[in-house]
Amino acid sequence: MKIKQCWVMLILSISVSFNFFLGCATNVTVPQGALIIQEQGSFAVGGTIISTPGTFDRYNPMRPDGQTLHGDHAYVFYQVPVNARELPIIFLHGAGQFSKTWETTPDGREGFQNIFLRRGFATYLLHQPRRGAAGRSTIPMTITPITDEMMWFETFRLGNWPDFYPGVQFPQDQESLNQYFRQMTPNTGPHDAQVVSDAVVALFEKLGGGILITHSQGGSSGWFTAIKSDKVKAIVTYEPGLLIFPDTDIPPAIPNTHPLNYDPRIIVPLQDFLKLTRIPIILYYGDFIPEESTNNSGVEQWRVSLQMARVFVETINRHGGDATLVHLPTIGITGNTHFPFSDLNNIAVADQMSKFLNEKGLDR
Amino acid sequence: MKIKQCWVMLILSISVSFNFFLGCATNVTVPQGALIIQEQGSFAVGGTIISTPGTFDRYNPMRPDGQTLHGDHAYVFYQVPVNARELPIIFLHGAGQFSKTWETTPDGREGFQNIFLRRGFATYLLHQPRRGAAGRSTIPMTITPITDEMMWFETFRLGNWPDFYPGVQFPQDQESLNQYFRQMTPNTGPHDAQVVSDAVVALFEKLGGGILITHSQGGSSGWFTAIKSDKVKAIVTYEPGLLIFPDTDIPPAIPNTHPLNYDPRIIVPLQDFLKLTRIPIILYYGDFIPEESTNNSGVEQWRVSLQMARVFVETINRHGGDATLVHLPTIGITGNTHFPFSDLNNIAVADQMSKFLNEKGLDR
Repeated sequence: MKIKQCWVMLILSISVSFNFFLGCATNVTVPQGALIIQEQGSFAVGGTIISTPGTFDRYNPMRPDGQTLHGDHAYVFYQVPVNARELPIIFLHGAGQFSKTWETTPDGREGFQNIFLRRGFATYLLHQPRRGAAGRSTIPMTITPITDEMMWFETFRLGNWPDFYPGVQFPQDQESLNQYFRQMTPNTGPHDAQVVSDAVVALFEKLGGGILITHSQGGSSGWFTAIKSDKVKAIVTYEPGLLIFPDTDIPPAIPNTHPLNYDPRIIVPLQDFLKLTRIPIILYYGDFIPEESTNNSGVEQWRVSLQMARVFVETINRHGGDATLVHLPTIGITGNTHFPFSDLNNIAVADQMSKFLNEKGLDR
Repeated sequence: MKIKQCWVMLILSISVSFNFFLGCATNVTVPQGALIIQEQGSFAVGGTIISTPGTFDRYNPMRPDGQTLHGDHAYVFYQVPVNARELPIIFLHGAGQFSKTWETTPDGREGFQNIFLRRGFATYLLHQPRRGAAGRSTIPMTITPITDEMMWFETFRLGNWPDFYPGVQFPQDQESLNQYFRQMTPNTGPHDAQVVSDAVVALFEKLGGGILITHSQGGSSGWFTAIKSDKVKAIVTYEPGLLIFPDTDIPPAIPNTHPLNYDPRIIVPLQDFLKLTRIPIILYYGDFIPEESTNNSGVEQWRVSLQMARVFVETINRHGGDATLVHLPTIGITGNTHFPFSDLNNIAVADQMSKFLNEKGLDR
């Protein structure tokens, strides 16, 4: 890695206890555990602009006439460690979530943000359009607070409320659950995988290349991102809800008890599907997913997704692709919820991802 | 600063290009400009829990009965540099904004987040309750996209749309304005300075002490935070819209042309107001604020706030306090908008804040 050219430093005249204005390259004693960050910051990416015809009247500035609204962009916080590996990692969250998914875990341990910084990757954490920090939407939304957290407790497979599953890799103290529930934030406009993937594509085009990590609902936007941009060099996806198939090769639906008759199939033209055969893809699913149908619709949904994921992998590979499905319990990694990357064993889960990136030559 | 005890490191068997798993303290060559972060992460703080009576039915999980919703918390992203100064800095944004206020500037320079990390402070960046990443609200909200950005252009004092003010410290390229407009995100519940300050108080109580930096609408929540918690050791506020007065000493309103007859006075009991006399307070206002009334309501608002801020400072000091108002153009720092901390001259603006912290012994 090249060290950027020196710049003239403004040395403050006030006393500083440690000189952070380092010279071109300085030998310093770094305490154990410290992160050495070459660069960090944030920006908006993608999005659209709507406008109202007419002329702006500064004396009636609440009138929308002649004014614009910039919306539907994504928000990104990024950090580049010193001596970063070639490809950055781009993290896209799932439904109801934001970048917190990848940050500090509910019990205060390091999430994938810090873990993969320590492993030498630049990290880019997204808030998808119409969510969290990227909340400025071009479409209206009414947000109604509904008590729904016991549903999430079960759908995210922590247990059967109020009981945790035996062996679940989730901390069982009250504050961890408090933090977990508070890492949700609502949509500020309708979820639209095309709007989301357009913004993620804009990020990949800006970066020139990267590894896309998706979770749950984010999986759908991930498929579309890789179809729209060849700058996606690999997809690592945790428990994608929806799988994607070519219109020439549509698998049968999987019968289920879900009240919405859960259908995890996205159908696209064959030429789009084939773009997914050009990159390595790995799918991870956690524990507590039954093979047999259940009346618990939250859990039933993952049974159907996991089964369809097997069909997806078979379909991709039959078309010349490189997809792998890892059902974590089958390789001895047990107890994982819908959030393996923040579960108690998330170092083991991260090691699996590192192994994949290494095997595919993506960690150079 | 003490170096925390060593912990056993998991050394990955896969090849790593740079060993980020440092020992207890290691001599490393750090490229110029790098940030050395001892610890970073995020958490929710404060908030409330609402619940629906009844029993949760896992077979009808969309029914709210017997379920909870955790909301009205703040979200915090924090970073602690090595050898951090004693007091952390807590950053609270203004109306329509989130932590981006303090992050990368619209033209890609470093904001106060990085600047004060480099100056040795731990930084805590808030998203206030019902905004951005802290979007889970206990009160409903309808979000309607309204084209309003020419209003913000003028209210934030960039110029008279589409013209920038001569000498304004705002980058005049199109992408900077694009980034600037996209750093807004809507309320996901009604703004409530008591709800906000309750969450900020929870953060200060958790930290045990810190310096509170507020902007614009956040100023109100800042006053209430310092009234509710003696862990606020100082307030630095940029262009607070509202000023606070004791019920024993209410200044006259300032006549103005604002359509809402803008009234920047918050009135509290004397014993609450007196709590603000126990800490150093500094208020900064930027440029392009007229002394005479104008029909441009966006600008008129700041005229009234600045004039009332002078009365506030006089009132605090008359009651034994330590408040200072700095109208930046009067000390030769010209061209600042409503966002001095991200304007082109934000290093000079930061130097003023450093000078204040040093004079008050807050940078030890």
